[in-house]
Amino acid sequence: MNKPLLKTCLTPSALSNYNLKDYTVVVIDIFRATSTISAALDNGAKAVIPVETVEECMSIQNENKAGILTGGERNGMVIPGLQYGNSPLEYKEDVVKDKILALTTTNGTKLLHKAIDAKEIIIGSFLNIDALCEYLILEEKNVILACAGWRGLVNLEDSLFAGAVINKIGSKFDISCDSSLIALTLFRESENHKSIFDFLKTSAHFERLKSFGLLADIKYCCTPNTHPVVPKFKAPYIMI
Amino acid sequence: MNKPLLKTCLTPSALSNYNLKDYTVVVIDIFRATSTISAALDNGAKAVIPVETVEECMSIQNENKAGILTGGERNGMVIPGLQYGNSPLEYKEDVVKDKILALTTTNGTKLLHKAIDAKEIIIGSFLNIDALCEYLILEEKNVILACAGWRGLVNLEDSLFAGAVINKIGSKFDISCDSSLIALTLFRESENHKSIFDFLKTSAHFERLKSFGLLADIKYCCTPNTHPVVPKFKAPYIMI
Repeated sequence: MNKPLLKTCLTPSALSNYNLKDYTVVVIDIFRATSTISAALDNGAKAVIPVETVEECMSIQNENKAGILTGGERNGMVIPGLQYGNSPLEYKEDVVKDKILALTTTNGTKLLHKAIDAKEIIIGSFLNIDALCEYLILEEKNVILACAGWRGLVNLEDSLFAGAVINKIGSKFDISCDSSLIALTLFRESENHKSIFDFLKTSAHFERLKSFGLLADIKYCCTPNTHPVVPKFKAPYIMI
Repeated sequence: MNKPLLKTCLTPSALSNYNLKDYTVVVIDIFRATSTISAALDNGAKAVIPVETVEECMSIQNENKAGILTGGERNGMVIPGLQYGNSPLEYKEDVVKDKILALTTTNGTKLLHKAIDAKEIIIGSFLNIDALCEYLILEEKNVILACAGWRGLVNLEDSLFAGAVINKIGSKFDISCDSSLIALTLFRESENHKSIFDFLKTSAHFERLKSFGLLADIKYCCTPNTHPVVPKFKAPYIMI
């Protein structure tokens, strides 16, 4: 039997080159949207609603529905007026349990909407990497690892995560995709460093987030399997 | 004094994210457009006209101007009706000396036109890598290494070439660009292989070209400094 395909899309700019309805798309935004979504759902949130614009998020907040929280960031910074930011550390059980979180972020939530034609959309982060990989193997469907990147450009952390997934499950898939080879090369290089965190210190985004005082967030987002869930996006909700 | 910037754009899909007028753009299409252009000009062609469509190329041929050759490919294959293909080996001195070559290719010539707003557009290939690097250092301008990729997607050979350039001249530039870090990681990994050719055997494009009987072309395109020229694109001509 033929193996299913696995492809990597290193930037959202390139996503329109794929016939998404033939694929399960794994949306990857390590710093920090998909890490935050995994944490919030594992900590008891009923659902996350990814919202494209700040205005939309504000409007959900203004309706002041019971049981709805709002959070988000733009360019790595909190948005004045929303209740929470985009840190996985904010969404502890006492905050999110049984709540619905409306979340808007610079790159990740936009990519979720861009992937809307996919057969299935799954959330990927180091926090849920093993649960995700197990799911993809059992499912035996064609997969695109879709990196959110930074403002349309390729970034190090999302590409590295794609490589980490390929390193774990690549042998179960047919990979004739140069972006996957590049991501895998990157992951193997990272293994020469003390930790993922240590390797990512060289990235452009690392410096940006560090300058906002978000080192604890970065460390948290680099820790594998803290939140072993497989969140799925069926518009408008992401749920486990 | 601040160093000039060096950025890498791994796919044409992402090129619109840059303010091109602030940059010298190096257009990279290793297999094979920019290799062919370097070879043709070094072998005595007066100029290359990069043409976006096959129809345009045919129409130049039908005008049958003395001193004009036409060549090109689509999806790695020759185009029936044009005089030549897209192989650097075709454009020897006895063919191209004092001629103008109208060339249309799947990815490279399209990217040249996409980069048209750049301050300056230069042709990059392994065949002219040292001449190119020397030029970029002397010029001290901001640089984007723009990879043609394959149909909008990232490919291994163009990304590797970007990494090879960064490995040579990166210290003269300010690089806060994750795509450049990724390309450099890729190049350093390639140094663990016998040769560039050997490393590129894993790429998707390698198999595609090999299946068209183009192994000799691939080997030629991987050989550094065979054609030490610095071709520049000032529409409609690429000249040295």
